Amino acid sequence: MMSCDQSDIAVWGKTMHQWAHELYPICRSITGAGVRETLDFIKVHLSGLEVHSVPSGTQVFDWQVPKEWEINDAYVIGPDGTKVIDFQRSNLHVLNYSVAIDKKLTLEELQPYLYSLPEQPNAIPYVTSYYAPRWGFCLSHEDRAQLKPGMYHAVIDSRHFDGELNYGEYFLPGESEKEVLISTYICHPSMANNELSGPMVSLALAKHLAQLPKRKYSYRFVFIPETIGAISFLSERLEWLKRHVVAGYVLTCIGDERNYSYLQSKIENTLSDRAAMHVLKYTVPEYRLYDFLSRGSDERQYCAPGVDLPVGSIMRTRYGDYPEYHTSLDDLSLVTPQGLAGGLRVCMDAIKLIEANAFYKVTVLCEPQLGKRGLYPTLSSMSLDYTDVRTLTNLIAYCDGEHDLIEIADKIKVCALDLLPTVEKLVSEGLLEKVKE
Amino acid sequence: MMSCDQSDIAVWGKTMHQWAHELYPICRSITGAGVRETLDFIKVHLSGLEVHSVPSGTQVFDWQVPKEWEINDAYVIGPDGTKVIDFQRSNLHVLNYSVAIDKKLTLEELQPYLYSLPEQPNAIPYVTSYYAPRWGFCLSHEDRAQLKPGMYHAVIDSRHFDGELNYGEYFLPGESEKEVLISTYICHPSMANNELSGPMVSLALAKHLAQLPKRKYSYRFVFIPETIGAISFLSERLEWLKRHVVAGYVLTCIGDERNYSYLQSKIENTLSDRAAMHVLKYTVPEYRLYDFLSRGSDERQYCAPGVDLPVGSIMRTRYGDYPEYHTSLDDLSLVTPQGLAGGLRVCMDAIKLIEANAFYKVTVLCEPQLGKRGLYPTLSSMSLDYTDVRTLTNLIAYCDGEHDLIEIADKIKVCALDLLPTVEKLVSEGLLEKVKE
Amino acid sequence: MMSCDQSDIAVWGKTMHQWAHELYPICRSITGAGVRETLDFIKVHLSGLEVHSVPSGTQVFDWQVPKEWEINDAYVIGPDGTKVIDFQRSNLHVLNYSVAIDKKLTLEELQPYLYSLPEQPNAIPYVTSYYAPRWGFCLSHEDRAQLKPGMYHAVIDSRHFDGELNYGEYFLPGESEKEVLISTYICHPSMANNELSGPMVSLALAKHLAQLPKRKYSYRFVFIPETIGAISFLSERLEWLKRHVVAGYVLTCIGDERNYSYLQSKIENTLSDRAAMHVLKYTVPEYRLYDFLSRGSDERQYCAPGVDLPVGSIMRTRYGDYPEYHTSLDDLSLVTPQGLAGGLRVCMDAIKLIEANAFYKVTVLCEPQLGKRGLYPTLSSMSLDYTDVRTLTNLIAYCDGEHDLIEIADKIKVCALDLLPTVEKLVSEGLLEKVKE
Repeated sequence: MMSCDQSDIAVWGKTMHQWAHELYPICRSITGAGVRETLDFIKVHLSGLEVHSVPSGTQVFDWQVPKEWEINDAYVIGPDGTKVIDFQRSNLHVLNYSVAIDKKLTLEELQPYLYSLPEQPNAIPYVTSYYAPRWGFCLSHEDRAQLKPGMYHAVIDSRHFDGELNYGEYFLPGESEKEVLISTYICHPSMANNELSGPMVSLALAKHLAQLPKRKYSYRFVFIPETIGAISFLSERLEWLKRHVVAGYVLTCIGDERNYSYLQSKIENTLSDRAAMHVLKYTVPEYRLYDFLSRGSDERQYCAPGVDLPVGSIMRTRYGDYPEYHTSLDDLSLVTPQGLAGGLRVCMDAIKLIEANAFYKVTVLCEPQLGKRGLYPTLSSMSLDYTDVRTLTNLIAYCDGEHDLIEIADKIKVCALDLLPTVEKLVSEGLLEKVKE
Repeated sequence: MMSCDQSDIAVWGKTMHQWAHELYPICRSITGAGVRETLDFIKVHLSGLEVHSVPSGTQVFDWQVPKEWEINDAYVIGPDGTKVIDFQRSNLHVLNYSVAIDKKLTLEELQPYLYSLPEQPNAIPYVTSYYAPRWGFCLSHEDRAQLKPGMYHAVIDSRHFDGELNYGEYFLPGESEKEVLISTYICHPSMANNELSGPMVSLALAKHLAQLPKRKYSYRFVFIPETIGAISFLSERLEWLKRHVVAGYVLTCIGDERNYSYLQSKIENTLSDRAAMHVLKYTVPEYRLYDFLSRGSDERQYCAPGVDLPVGSIMRTRYGDYPEYHTSLDDLSLVTPQGLAGGLRVCMDAIKLIEANAFYKVTVLCEPQLGKRGLYPTLSSMSLDYTDVRTLTNLIAYCDGEHDLIEIADKIKVCALDLLPTVEKLVSEGLLEKVKE
Repeated sequence: MMSCDQSDIAVWGKTMHQWAHELYPICRSITGAGVRETLDFIKVHLSGLEVHSVPSGTQVFDWQVPKEWEINDAYVIGPDGTKVIDFQRSNLHVLNYSVAIDKKLTLEELQPYLYSLPEQPNAIPYVTSYYAPRWGFCLSHEDRAQLKPGMYHAVIDSRHFDGELNYGEYFLPGESEKEVLISTYICHPSMANNELSGPMVSLALAKHLAQLPKRKYSYRFVFIPETIGAISFLSERLEWLKRHVVAGYVLTCIGDERNYSYLQSKIENTLSDRAAMHVLKYTVPEYRLYDFLSRGSDERQYCAPGVDLPVGSIMRTRYGDYPEYHTSLDDLSLVTPQGLAGGLRVCMDAIKLIEANAFYKVTVLCEPQLGKRGLYPTLSSMSLDYTDVRTLTNLIAYCDGEHDLIEIADKIKVCALDLLPTVEKLVSEGLLEKVKE
């Protein structure tokens, strides 16, 4: 398999993991300083990043941009005067988007505001309440069990105010105005696979593509708060995107080492789907394919009726399919340099294939005489191995200008990326010509 | 599964079985008094029924309407002077449509005119000869074995004369001129599954539909002699039917308790097929699907080349697939209130789905905000069960105006009938609109 | 199964085997006297055969017609003065198309010019070098092992000169200008399955078709050197063929008794494919189906992009799939009268079906009344066997003018050839009419 350079990839893996370390402690939400701080970090590495601001209250399709959330501190002081829950130790301890509270209550009165997971007693769960005012604390079930009866003092020093929602957009022009969309989200607090892995792989991918001497397609990367960010972005850009996007991926949960996954777009056989599935089939045959019914991220918006963008999702282990999902256990030991590198590799290969995919046609009638060009053995004998020339002649046999490379590769049962040098050689010999992108 | 009300159905089951008891003794054939008596009974319960009369000799497509058959009595007197075969005991004893005979003959001479089933020694077989003049008697193989050598006196007091062929037609107007055709046959003498079950379920279905406050489609019920009746009816109505029938079913063998079956129309994926198969898949997953090669009833006419109506057949255990078929054992112990009720339920559900099926489109771009409408939990937590909202969001995701409800339900793996309340709620919220029937 | 007459076929089998005996000793190559001698033999049996001549050096698409090869003798004299390799004993001993040589060399110096098969020690391999000048000898590995050290004298008395490439073409006119193409090759020296079987079956098939009182289609048979002959022929005839060929087969490896095989055209569902696969499915269900990726003969040219003729390949055991392939063991004990007869039978049946295939439409609405025409039992009884009338009524049910006989036969699960008498009967009854070829 002729996929991307493995040593380059390994270097990217370490870099991404280092970036993730720096971003991990920030308390992100769908709005607020955490998002901006994260975007600032990305902009350091991707200077062309444009940071958008959408005022609270703005109507975006069926939604309204919510108020901005500021969180300064949050803790619970126990009967013995010590902080039994402390936002400073983990920003998961506060119910994300909590309203302010400063209240003394008994343990019994406090219990309805506490969230823990009996089945995962050592994990702090990640819980949010964006669209209904609530306050609460999340803690491990073990810690909850230690709470003694008595009076507690719950403090959440937060506020909601008319501010802005922010997202980053990075555009990389190519030879064509047609573009590939990469979308990832930056609204999760201290968790690693879901979600720092997506932004990290997106950042590395953007830097990698920016370095290429040429690109057929333009590339648009968006770093957005999930759901409301995607809707805000689409509300701004939908008409353009519908006319220009040829393929796109949501990148999320793409940094662990367990699995590789692909979630199909609603249309199921877009260029995005075909490229990612082809690459995964030949490089990670055991990868897991999900259909659109298993969706759970921003492809919900990109593939909604009337939006209908060709967007699938490339993942390692999908959200909800690993036990650490949405808990404090989803950390930087679960997400590794190698895990991130593997995710990046699939993205690079899929994009390499999207760039290379085209319709070719042979320029001569009947089979070309390959022998005189040194492409076919001149001795005919049963003891020769014809495997390589078989792929060459199969490629030629199906290059009729009506099937693109992915389709031909599937038909002749080889990885399309492995065909690329052969295509190049045949084009340079004048035996193939590109008739359509 | 949200199919029809089960207690109503049970009441219908008892009613249908009672009706069948009253009709059971009548000696029906493809023409004659038995047919008229049966239609009279149906008209009592369905006052709008129109009884058609087609004169003997009328050319109907490739066929001629046969003479009317009158049967007064039929018996065989044995050597000892007793009636060894007697039409008064079972009208199956006479070969249906027999010519008259009054003849003394030896047992040996009589044998070629006797029909019995060695493999089912206690059953009187049902045998007909409509289009070639014959006489004969049917009896159980056990009884036949008791016949002693000697002189027999065979008498069939019947006559064939220029009369009429009759069938009943009941039309129930709906909002649309487009109609659903229900066809069943009334030419079988004393048998129950094949055939009193079809007319009984048709009658109940007609009464049920007549009671509905509104119907999208019009409904046409025909109670006809098999084959020649269907051909006569089509000969009269074909052009209209071709322009108006959107779906249709032959109802036959629909009263036993064993199985559920569906026989596809020749076109295989008509609205009739899709509705019945969808409903059966979700309510009786073990139901048996037959393709058109297994056809055996009036769908042979409705689906003939040039006729091409979208007509399948809903059955419980199909003709030929139960041992009592076409014998005296096919009686009112085989056909039960519960068996009839089950058959009726499938018809009601299929028609409910035909009525409800339509193309809907979401009215907003991106996902609608369901939380603010109380349709989605405002707290995001792994400990919640999202199954119900999953169906809701899946429905919305596929309502693009290009797939009808049956197709969407199949795609999202739920019974379409279960989606109807959700569709209604979303329509009333202004989130869905019907774009095409 | 109503396929061709088996006793006729057996006679053809013996005749073909006798022909093959006469042609076996000739040393053929892609050009030269051996090809002409073979064509002369075929012309004796097929007087209309036209022998074409294409001068060396002629440009044919991407290729040039090579020089003519003359081989007079070839041998190697061993240290003891005896001929250890002798072309007179088997023409496989010389590397086909060898340049001339007359040289004394040590065994060690000779070794690089010797070809043998260690895994098949008793077989002389068949090796060619058409497009690069080489000389060499082929021998069994056993014989090679016997060669003693010492001086050898290698002589190949051959020459290459500007001459011609020859191929035979036989055209059999039919009622239509549309034609069926049969292609086979005549460039192999003394081997039997690959390849004398193809020309022998083609010759018998041509004689058989010539004897028919009428043919719907015209037939074009070509006897050509593989690859360069096909390309030369196409270079001459392509435009005509593209407009007229409705079906075609390459016949090769069609004389052994092991297997039956079909190799699909690139388009996969042409009339050629459908007819051959249908006939094989019903007559040799265990036949082996190869897709176009397994191609290896002149279908490579006929199906090349821009050529796109509907040509598949009918074989018994495919080239490369039997151990004797391309060795001296592929002889007239492997190819038998019965093997050839079986191959011919499939060709005849496929062509019979191509000739008969058409679109029919019933002339009446609803089912025709078959009883009055003696085509349906007038007595209706469970003890009758309806299998035959079932096929009859199934045929009628699907004769809607939109599906051809092969499609209908597949649908109703009978061999299309078995339907032909029924079709004829229904046409003569006026119940079916042909609406399209």
